[in-house]
Amino acid sequence: MALPANEVENSKTKDFASNRSPQTEHHEHAHEAQFGEQLVNAPTESSTGTGAAGVEPQRTSAGLKKTRSALGLHPEAPIDPEHDTKQHQDLFWSKVKIALREPFAEFWGVCIMVMFGDGSVAQVLLSTGQTTAPGGNGFGAYQSISWGWGIGVMLGIYVAGDSGAYLNPAITFTNCLFRQLPWRRFPMYFIAQLLGGFVGSGIVYANYISAIDWFEGGHGIRTVPPAAKATAGIFCTYPQPFVTKASQFFSEFIASSLLMFIIFALKDPSNNGVGKSNKWFPLALFFLIFGLGACFGWETGYAINLVRDFGPRLMSYAVGYPSEVWSAGGYYFWIPMVAPFCGCVFGGFLYDLFIYTGETPVNSPWFGLKYLLHAQKQRREHLRRNKEEGLV
Amino acid sequence: MALPANEVENSKTKDFASNRSPQTEHHEHAHEAQFGEQLVNAPTESSTGTGAAGVEPQRTSAGLKKTRSALGLHPEAPIDPEHDTKQHQDLFWSKVKIALREPFAEFWGVCIMVMFGDGSVAQVLLSTGQTTAPGGNGFGAYQSISWGWGIGVMLGIYVAGDSGAYLNPAITFTNCLFRQLPWRRFPMYFIAQLLGGFVGSGIVYANYISAIDWFEGGHGIRTVPPAAKATAGIFCTYPQPFVTKASQFFSEFIASSLLMFIIFALKDPSNNGVGKSNKWFPLALFFLIFGLGACFGWETGYAINLVRDFGPRLMSYAVGYPSEVWSAGGYYFWIPMVAPFCGCVFGGFLYDLFIYTGETPVNSPWFGLKYLLHAQKQRREHLRRNKEEGLV
Amino acid sequence: MALPANEVENSKTKDFASNRSPQTEHHEHAHEAQFGEQLVNAPTESSTGTGAAGVEPQRTSAGLKKTRSALGLHPEAPIDPEHDTKQHQDLFWSKVKIALREPFAEFWGVCIMVMFGDGSVAQVLLSTGQTTAPGGNGFGAYQSISWGWGIGVMLGIYVAGDSGAYLNPAITFTNCLFRQLPWRRFPMYFIAQLLGGFVGSGIVYANYISAIDWFEGGHGIRTVPPAAKATAGIFCTYPQPFVTKASQFFSEFIASSLLMFIIFALKDPSNNGVGKSNKWFPLALFFLIFGLGACFGWETGYAINLVRDFGPRLMSYAVGYPSEVWSAGGYYFWIPMVAPFCGCVFGGFLYDLFIYTGETPVNSPWFGLKYLLHAQKQRREHLRRNKEEGLV
Amino acid sequence: MALPANEVENSKTKDFASNRSPQTEHHEHAHEAQFGEQLVNAPTESSTGTGAAGVEPQRTSAGLKKTRSALGLHPEAPIDPEHDTKQHQDLFWSKVKIALREPFAEFWGVCIMVMFGDGSVAQVLLSTGQTTAPGGNGFGAYQSISWGWGIGVMLGIYVAGDSGAYLNPAITFTNCLFRQLPWRRFPMYFIAQLLGGFVGSGIVYANYISAIDWFEGGHGIRTVPPAAKATAGIFCTYPQPFVTKASQFFSEFIASSLLMFIIFALKDPSNNGVGKSNKWFPLALFFLIFGLGACFGWETGYAINLVRDFGPRLMSYAVGYPSEVWSAGGYYFWIPMVAPFCGCVFGGFLYDLFIYTGETPVNSPWFGLKYLLHAQKQRREHLRRNKEEGLV
Repeated sequence: MALPANEVENSKTKDFASNRSPQTEHHEHAHEAQFGEQLVNAPTESSTGTGAAGVEPQRTSAGLKKTRSALGLHPEAPIDPEHDTKQHQDLFWSKVKIALREPFAEFWGVCIMVMFGDGSVAQVLLSTGQTTAPGGNGFGAYQSISWGWGIGVMLGIYVAGDSGAYLNPAITFTNCLFRQLPWRRFPMYFIAQLLGGFVGSGIVYANYISAIDWFEGGHGIRTVPPAAKATAGIFCTYPQPFVTKASQFFSEFIASSLLMFIIFALKDPSNNGVGKSNKWFPLALFFLIFGLGACFGWETGYAINLVRDFGPRLMSYAVGYPSEVWSAGGYYFWIPMVAPFCGCVFGGFLYDLFIYTGETPVNSPWFGLKYLLHAQKQRREHLRRNKEEGLV
Repeated sequence: MALPANEVENSKTKDFASNRSPQTEHHEHAHEAQFGEQLVNAPTESSTGTGAAGVEPQRTSAGLKKTRSALGLHPEAPIDPEHDTKQHQDLFWSKVKIALREPFAEFWGVCIMVMFGDGSVAQVLLSTGQTTAPGGNGFGAYQSISWGWGIGVMLGIYVAGDSGAYLNPAITFTNCLFRQLPWRRFPMYFIAQLLGGFVGSGIVYANYISAIDWFEGGHGIRTVPPAAKATAGIFCTYPQPFVTKASQFFSEFIASSLLMFIIFALKDPSNNGVGKSNKWFPLALFFLIFGLGACFGWETGYAINLVRDFGPRLMSYAVGYPSEVWSAGGYYFWIPMVAPFCGCVFGGFLYDLFIYTGETPVNSPWFGLKYLLHAQKQRREHLRRNKEEGLV
Repeated sequence: MALPANEVENSKTKDFASNRSPQTEHHEHAHEAQFGEQLVNAPTESSTGTGAAGVEPQRTSAGLKKTRSALGLHPEAPIDPEHDTKQHQDLFWSKVKIALREPFAEFWGVCIMVMFGDGSVAQVLLSTGQTTAPGGNGFGAYQSISWGWGIGVMLGIYVAGDSGAYLNPAITFTNCLFRQLPWRRFPMYFIAQLLGGFVGSGIVYANYISAIDWFEGGHGIRTVPPAAKATAGIFCTYPQPFVTKASQFFSEFIASSLLMFIIFALKDPSNNGVGKSNKWFPLALFFLIFGLGACFGWETGYAINLVRDFGPRLMSYAVGYPSEVWSAGGYYFWIPMVAPFCGCVFGGFLYDLFIYTGETPVNSPWFGLKYLLHAQKQRREHLRRNKEEGLV
Repeated sequence: MALPANEVENSKTKDFASNRSPQTEHHEHAHEAQFGEQLVNAPTESSTGTGAAGVEPQRTSAGLKKTRSALGLHPEAPIDPEHDTKQHQDLFWSKVKIALREPFAEFWGVCIMVMFGDGSVAQVLLSTGQTTAPGGNGFGAYQSISWGWGIGVMLGIYVAGDSGAYLNPAITFTNCLFRQLPWRRFPMYFIAQLLGGFVGSGIVYANYISAIDWFEGGHGIRTVPPAAKATAGIFCTYPQPFVTKASQFFSEFIASSLLMFIIFALKDPSNNGVGKSNKWFPLALFFLIFGLGACFGWETGYAINLVRDFGPRLMSYAVGYPSEVWSAGGYYFWIPMVAPFCGCVFGGFLYDLFIYTGETPVNSPWFGLKYLLHAQKQRREHLRRNKEEGLV
């Protein structure tokens, strides 16, 4: 009798690198494929009873599934099935952890990203020209900030692997638009990301509070650029004074387009220039973010992310910075809220238009307008089916 | 009955990392081997009817094949066969996308490379000495430019994986000469690369237009080095004033030779120092380009690439820089057009002469002169055969 | 007859990359899983007689096992079984080497880490403003110190692979608390790490002794910050003068929390953002340490490690620095001893609370208080069993 | 009937990553194990007639084998067997290429290493303080030199993979002493490396000749440190004036020890901290060399390599630098010739003493003195056997 192919497959599951059951792998790939609708459906369907060999048919409990659906998340939490034990499901906190798995991941990812990013600005800005530093000229230069944000994004992606590590609502949005990530994911992701930016920048503020007092020249003095000793620029971005409104918008727009275009390339499994695994992705993002900081970071501070700018801005206003945080640069604050969405959508559209060959609205008749309608119908159908199964 | 070996092979195709049919793998390797003639022929031949198990025998439609042949591209587009569906082939834009697959890839690769590269020069140059920067001394130093070009090339390679990611006509040329890349590929690649350089630098100009006005000291003032406030150096290279003509040429020549020598080493699957996969290639190129900028970037600005220099030069002339963009440095502009070709051919020749053991003209009698004649005969034969099949 | 699955497995053992017996692999994974108790038990049990095919049942000799147990180490040394030959076991020094395998690894790991780290501070500080340097401004800037510590940690991890490469007693401690590393490992690891810090910084002192004389302005003059020409800051950390006691503690606390949180993420095999192999770990730690230096390194010098700070401090006191090494900064020296432990435990707790789904006290009733008691009972049981086998 | 295990093995040989015959793999591993004697013997023995399945028994022709033996190289050239065709062996130059394979690889490896390394010093030194640079302060800082040497070593290793990529006679020497690399390899490797250093620095000189004239202040003026405008420091190292002779030696000694210790760790397949493949080695060496430059590069310029220092020194003397290249720093020139050998041997000894468990003289009675005698006897025996086969 011949050896069945799947036994060969199974013989590998003893290996550490692949000791996850096929269904988990499936989940992983769902993430890698950026939550393609059909992939995301698959586990739901398989969980209704087909029972693939060796996988317990009922993973996440029915109650949790409903909670997760209500939050807009996929009913099945992205959790290692070996860890999804009965014992876990009886603990209150474990239930919370499973229910809020992706929001927790996004929260911590953005929090760590902002801690490193804002931390690097704080250190370079506050120590400007300090002659007692080794080297005699402060604790870092502009380049340290490129390092800080690059490292922050890289480590944030490592931490937030279970949610897809979007870390940016504009990127979530573009994935909803072009990569079949369900729109109902967006709100919870957005809230988690925004909170992450708020908390992360708050920790940086707490850490540097005595240094800020020292730099501003007195306890509790807080100023906003273009004041001479302003420290508000540690937390959120303020444009260079000579940049026109149009240039402000264009600068954020073009950097966001580049960001999305290249992320789509790096996540495209059909692009021969990219390794088929996701292992290189965090490192590549380090270089991408470093590059954006070194090449498009001067005029407007390359926010390219609502939560990285608005979250810390809110925090800085809350802890006592004056209302110039909103009015500075001609009420600049709305640009890093709006431009990243426009830029990311445009960048994603360009990639799909010129290079992507997979499933995307752009690769369908009328560049996706028909597809969008069709997808909506399909989603409604899917929702109805889930309702019958009592999941949503 | 024993399990046939290829069933074991197939059992793996469920894995995400290798979920492409054998023929695709073949295609990939064709790229890895830099379009060796015999490999490029293979899919054509197999598509005439042998029909490997599980692969549809007729992928790209006959009409598209003719168009692609007419453009000098390989009749079969490097496209994931799973994505090459009937649905695609009925859409007008998808047909364009398949027909112009490699030119699109080269265009975007060069465009992104130049955006990061020129962007970094713009940021460092225009913010020189700005004391309001964090750190008090501008938004970057010379090293940021090494980062910018290194990252640009790295990300350009990721994006342009489907065309081989040459990004440089001198590298395409040397691959035609020594690595059996058909010469008829060269023109379309060249046009796409040149357009990429033009457009990429144009975007940088648009992004920094208000900053350039501010730096030059007035709206619309545009000057060329060695003027005191010249900004033309953002886009293309101008030599240091003390460098003689011969040194100008030698500097570009030697940097191009190094570039090609090391790329050939990195792409040589028989060199034991190099990983057998292409995964490390983009990162290694980052270091290579960074190194060239740090070690040979001063005298002439390490253009080492016609399209990176001539494209942006043309753009800068078009948007209003004076005619000194051509005459500066003793009509220096032709050196970064010619020297990279000479340097790359020389560097490739050296590698093949001393280290390469694979198929190359240099490894044949009379260092390839005979081979070239033979290859031409072979190519004519191949062309004739294709004509009979109605492909060209 | 079918091919047994494990034969397929074995057919791979000819490959270089996996030419270690299954038991070795097991050992490796034990390291990867950070010495989970159940995994660490496994080899012990298998060594009592089950005798997996192809593995000699009695590896480490009984005498060595007792010695190792007495030192608090696992009875079985983490040594390639092919190298654990009879010949080895007869040599006195080889016995010492096997008995002290993990302490040796930790010692050299920390020693190398401190050599690079302190060496970079020495070079940047002592050459501050030297105009004869290439570039005219010293041999490095603050950023070199980020490089130095990042590279030191990376290379220390490569060297200390056989002990788990903790290199930091706070990290060892947190692994004991949350990852089932037996507590009796802690003392020997701690001693080895502390000696490594002492010796490593001593080598740096010996290397730069004439430069320190030159910088301080006379043979044997040694001063401590905030003296103008102080060099004590080369070896251990001294806080910025304006930082309050609370901020000092908070700065070290927050950096240690980040360190532990991210290391737990990078070592979590269930986190989808992390490659399943350990290959990326040293590189990721380079970026993590670089980032901590660039973002949280100013106020207190990011010691985040008792042995990196206390070891060199002791060394500098021993070689003649005045008693201000202890009293400077308001007897600051105790903060980098205590804060890293608090911070690492807190950071590890946060990761386990919000993201980790594997076995950890935090994922059990009462957030682990019950678990701790249970674990202690289990450990006592395990100890009793080992005693019966005459191992401890 | 069951599937034989080796058929499964073979079914993989279609994969690109492993499309080399088993013997080639063997060869590769020989390199990875740094030419362990027993591995190096293996192909010789198998070539006497056992004829492993699928491998042609007579690869390198008898004449070439004799030539290679006479040069001290292994009779079998490390060449992809698919490329070792009849056609090759009939061409004169291909014979030369096969005969001198390792020397060619070492030559180009060192040449590229020195081109990047010396090139970076040249650019930083000659452009010191140039205000027309983007950023306003020269084309690079001291850190660029760390980048240059790190990248040079990394790319040199990629290029010189077929010879083991030692690039440093002290490393070759230590491998002969501790890793069973035959001593008769040393002379040819040494000559090739020295020539590489000479030629590489000569190319840098040719490239920067007009800039050197400009910097020194006149055509043909060449001075040596500590002259104010000295440029000799571009090519080889000169110590800081305040460093004593003992500190000079110690600085080179300790950096060389670190170099060798860490290389041995990175090449130790039994060290769990290191990936089992060689893919990470070039990148790790980049960080190692960068670290040595940032941490131990100030006092004596971290030559740590005879050919990197003596080769360029000879070149600079030959092209017209005065005799101070030898006498400067109290006839410093001999220190970077001697200290690297002492340091590398000491560093290798330490690694073998404390961590290495594989075959090394240190792991044998009397710390290898007996072993050395034994090995010599064995080598004589091996030589005698080869003579009978007419190889040497």
